[in-house]
Amino acid sequence: MSFPVRVCALVGRFADPRVAESAGALVPHLAARGVRTLVADDAPLEPSRQVERVPERVFGQRADLVIAIGGDGTLLYAARLVARDGVPLLGINRGRLGFLTDVMPQDMLASVDAAIEGRCEQDRRALVTACLRAASGKVEAESVALNDVVLQKLATGRMLDFETWMDERYVNTHAGDGIVIATATGSTAYALSCGGPIVEPRVGVLVVAPICPHTLSDRPIVVPATTRIEVRITERPDTRAQVVCDGAVLGELVAGDRLEVKAARESVTLLHPAGHDYFNLLRSKLHWGRGGHDHSR
Amino acid sequence: MSFPVRVCALVGRFADPRVAESAGALVPHLAARGVRTLVADDAPLEPSRQVERVPERVFGQRADLVIAIGGDGTLLYAARLVARDGVPLLGINRGRLGFLTDVMPQDMLASVDAAIEGRCEQDRRALVTACLRAASGKVEAESVALNDVVLQKLATGRMLDFETWMDERYVNTHAGDGIVIATATGSTAYALSCGGPIVEPRVGVLVVAPICPHTLSDRPIVVPATTRIEVRITERPDTRAQVVCDGAVLGELVAGDRLEVKAARESVTLLHPAGHDYFNLLRSKLHWGRGGHDHSR
Amino acid sequence: MSFPVRVCALVGRFADPRVAESAGALVPHLAARGVRTLVADDAPLEPSRQVERVPERVFGQRADLVIAIGGDGTLLYAARLVARDGVPLLGINRGRLGFLTDVMPQDMLASVDAAIEGRCEQDRRALVTACLRAASGKVEAESVALNDVVLQKLATGRMLDFETWMDERYVNTHAGDGIVIATATGSTAYALSCGGPIVEPRVGVLVVAPICPHTLSDRPIVVPATTRIEVRITERPDTRAQVVCDGAVLGELVAGDRLEVKAARESVTLLHPAGHDYFNLLRSKLHWGRGGHDHSR
Amino acid sequence: MSFPVRVCALVGRFADPRVAESAGALVPHLAARGVRTLVADDAPLEPSRQVERVPERVFGQRADLVIAIGGDGTLLYAARLVARDGVPLLGINRGRLGFLTDVMPQDMLASVDAAIEGRCEQDRRALVTACLRAASGKVEAESVALNDVVLQKLATGRMLDFETWMDERYVNTHAGDGIVIATATGSTAYALSCGGPIVEPRVGVLVVAPICPHTLSDRPIVVPATTRIEVRITERPDTRAQVVCDGAVLGELVAGDRLEVKAARESVTLLHPAGHDYFNLLRSKLHWGRGGHDHSR
Repeated sequence: MSFPVRVCALVGRFADPRVAESAGALVPHLAARGVRTLVADDAPLEPSRQVERVPERVFGQRADLVIAIGGDGTLLYAARLVARDGVPLLGINRGRLGFLTDVMPQDMLASVDAAIEGRCEQDRRALVTACLRAASGKVEAESVALNDVVLQKLATGRMLDFETWMDERYVNTHAGDGIVIATATGSTAYALSCGGPIVEPRVGVLVVAPICPHTLSDRPIVVPATTRIEVRITERPDTRAQVVCDGAVLGELVAGDRLEVKAARESVTLLHPAGHDYFNLLRSKLHWGRGGHDHSR
Repeated sequence: MSFPVRVCALVGRFADPRVAESAGALVPHLAARGVRTLVADDAPLEPSRQVERVPERVFGQRADLVIAIGGDGTLLYAARLVARDGVPLLGINRGRLGFLTDVMPQDMLASVDAAIEGRCEQDRRALVTACLRAASGKVEAESVALNDVVLQKLATGRMLDFETWMDERYVNTHAGDGIVIATATGSTAYALSCGGPIVEPRVGVLVVAPICPHTLSDRPIVVPATTRIEVRITERPDTRAQVVCDGAVLGELVAGDRLEVKAARESVTLLHPAGHDYFNLLRSKLHWGRGGHDHSR
Repeated sequence: MSFPVRVCALVGRFADPRVAESAGALVPHLAARGVRTLVADDAPLEPSRQVERVPERVFGQRADLVIAIGGDGTLLYAARLVARDGVPLLGINRGRLGFLTDVMPQDMLASVDAAIEGRCEQDRRALVTACLRAASGKVEAESVALNDVVLQKLATGRMLDFETWMDERYVNTHAGDGIVIATATGSTAYALSCGGPIVEPRVGVLVVAPICPHTLSDRPIVVPATTRIEVRITERPDTRAQVVCDGAVLGELVAGDRLEVKAARESVTLLHPAGHDYFNLLRSKLHWGRGGHDHSR
Repeated sequence: MSFPVRVCALVGRFADPRVAESAGALVPHLAARGVRTLVADDAPLEPSRQVERVPERVFGQRADLVIAIGGDGTLLYAARLVARDGVPLLGINRGRLGFLTDVMPQDMLASVDAAIEGRCEQDRRALVTACLRAASGKVEAESVALNDVVLQKLATGRMLDFETWMDERYVNTHAGDGIVIATATGSTAYALSCGGPIVEPRVGVLVVAPICPHTLSDRPIVVPATTRIEVRITERPDTRAQVVCDGAVLGELVAGDRLEVKAARESVTLLHPAGHDYFNLLRSKLHWGRGGHDHSR
């Protein structure tokens, strides 16, 4: 991360009035501090001399900082844009606290100042790479993910059958709705809804959590982040499955195809205002410790 | 149910050699007892003078008994064929015990004899009716189900948002992969994978179980079988959901559409050999009580 | 229930200043309406001519209405005092909404007026009877319960082994921390923490939920409320278990002893202010439907 | 580990005839290979010149190898005896495969030969230290554990209230039956029954899993194995809790007392025959992948 920050890219769904409002407040604030602002060339924002429109794909090379305004989905999108280039990200929530967008609107300007002056806590998060490989061995699609890679059944009333392999060793044969392979960061997203544990972000592991498994003892497994995970679709007629990375569809698999997931070379750096506390975030997001329990149960 | 049985319909995936083999043994056995056998006119079975080929839709009017050979999916299919006419069903499993197909292959002939002579236990099971209603109020599709009616997200990386209403009262707003509305019979099918309870089949209730809910306290609810349940898809762009009854796709819903589920007027009668024990079936299917536990945990 | 109410018993932990304060406001209010107030003879309340002190055990015969002030535990205690006599109960919460004490402090006087004038909704709840039977067949202890009967391991690092039987039929052999047998009313108490479903209060069932079972497929079962449930402690050296009814210890069991649970002849009548909505209570207690979900998961 | 092995200690419940039988076969086998055998001085084994009786506490200094015969509980007991001295352990199961005692009786002699000749796979497992500290700061009891440290409510119908702190940071306030702090090794023991994940043994983490928590979002957390965890009993009258390490009672806590858990300096080395496969063990213990699934669900 280079300081001071001279160029900042804004990412968000600007069609949402709350996001547009935050962007509207942010652009002159950045300009007044001598920071240039980039937005996507097709962003639905009013023209302004303080904003330069460029293709999103150059954010990685041009920006010193990315500010994602919206929910966690927006930050996940932004993270994939700049993962290769190591540009740090600051997440501004548009109203409700997110696991990744942990700056509240009222704290936006102060947090942005802290980010451009290098006063934020830097929080490095591991990424994974997902790769779809056809039965022929050909790579069909590839993507990185910060939260999770999800294999799910596609448009059918039936269960999906698949095998999991780790570092070339056979693990299990599953039947169910699919499987989530989550980073520590993604443990509080989809994997949590599948019965997976909360994983402190700095722990170097992956959570492999079956989705609605047919076998009740088919429980989430925590493995080292260096594990190479392979999911093989079992040969059955009419089998179709979909792979989704951080909420974006990567592609489809049919019987015989494979999904491969492993640690990515890249990582992303999240910026947090000083005093950031992960457990405080958990307590807030999960409604923990709400007042006196009634001890009759 | 009329005794003695004079006409029997066979239902199964006869392309499966094990199913064809069972059918091959069953047909002459029925003929020798003076029972006529019906099969679907497109069934991939060898021609035989002992078998009459008719459209499946007339099984309900013509047969005194339906024998389903295969897994539970085959019996669910057969049950919907004859639900309106009240024809009883006997389920022959092709190898592994099912919750519904509880006659093992080696007991097939003896159990069929018991069924045609009226010596089986009659086990009446409730059905539900699912109805897809467009925002305009128009009924788009309708079906009965013996196990469950499932609303699920369709081909997208995002969660589905929907509301549940019961007997016109608002219950909850959900975000997740969908929801299962199961009969007592279906409680051990998909709903169990969603964290629902096992419900003894004679209990007159429905289980309403969210699928991978975003909110961890969004737990399965057990309500009277007479409850009229409505699921309303929340208005959001690009929302698509699918409704599946007993594993068969009923149709799709978009934002504003509704799924209505209520007790059906019809019921189905399952036949079991004497000595049938539901808890024994549970123990077998769920691998309960396997040998000495190691008390260190 | 006899109207108009002439005698009302107050139950609560009056040593708690908030409970004493509510009682202090309630007594003159009742007196002004011509209703006599009974409290337990050992209640730590200031002497008052408006209050008659009697043994709690006569509340059932003397009172037309019981008002429980506190949490759900207080109402459970009061319910067992008067279950035999069918005196209705009104539950005033001392601050946080309870599943059973659903009148908020600020609504206390209006709700009490509604109760004494017969304008409340009457909500009949089933009770169960728990009976501890020694290996010799002797009944060691007996109690009714409105929420649940819990068998739990006692002061040991080891699991408890036990069998469940229903209506004289063997169900399963369990290893774990114990088992909860809950009414529909109690489904949202301890049983919910054990993975049991929420059961609408008017459903006539029991939930039988193992506590931290060793076998992951050992799931909660929902059975008709008329089921006679028996739990038999397996013969093992040093086995000790405890039975708790609605939070109160009933007694201990050793290897060979049995716990029997069945529907009680008695029931209790809870009074609710008009407009009471069970699903609203659930939404409030379980933090359901809190604002916009972030759809990235 | 020193090779070749010259002194071997046997640990087991020799009052169990199956354990005594295995020991009876093992002692002459070891003697024939020139290995001396130690047993506890109070072991109920027949006198033999091939066996030296010593206090168990000297096993650590005198033995080159410990052979635990029985279930996982026996190996846990043996591991604590020799943890300080780093003596490796071989676990012989007396009939059913264990997570830790993974040598089947029929393979005992071959596996023991492999162990004494240094041909076994060495599998190093982390331990934790549990410390009970009174409100005064005084250490009341201390122990290491290989599987887990459990804080549980003691003999009462009420929930336990406690706070968790990690590395001096406040995490959560819990109400429930207690909490399990498990190593990766112990993740498949009690923690699994509490909804915790399976953790591959080589992952350096702890699983902190609440037992039947009152709050449904109070989920298991995975933290680095280096985390210092503190559990503080909340001030409430009559609160009593018990701490159990690997199934053995360590002591009691009252309101204001603390349980501290952190990585131990010691570790234990488990020996496995060549070809040992953790996932194979999981598949066997958890009944995974049993034959064809019925795809109707």
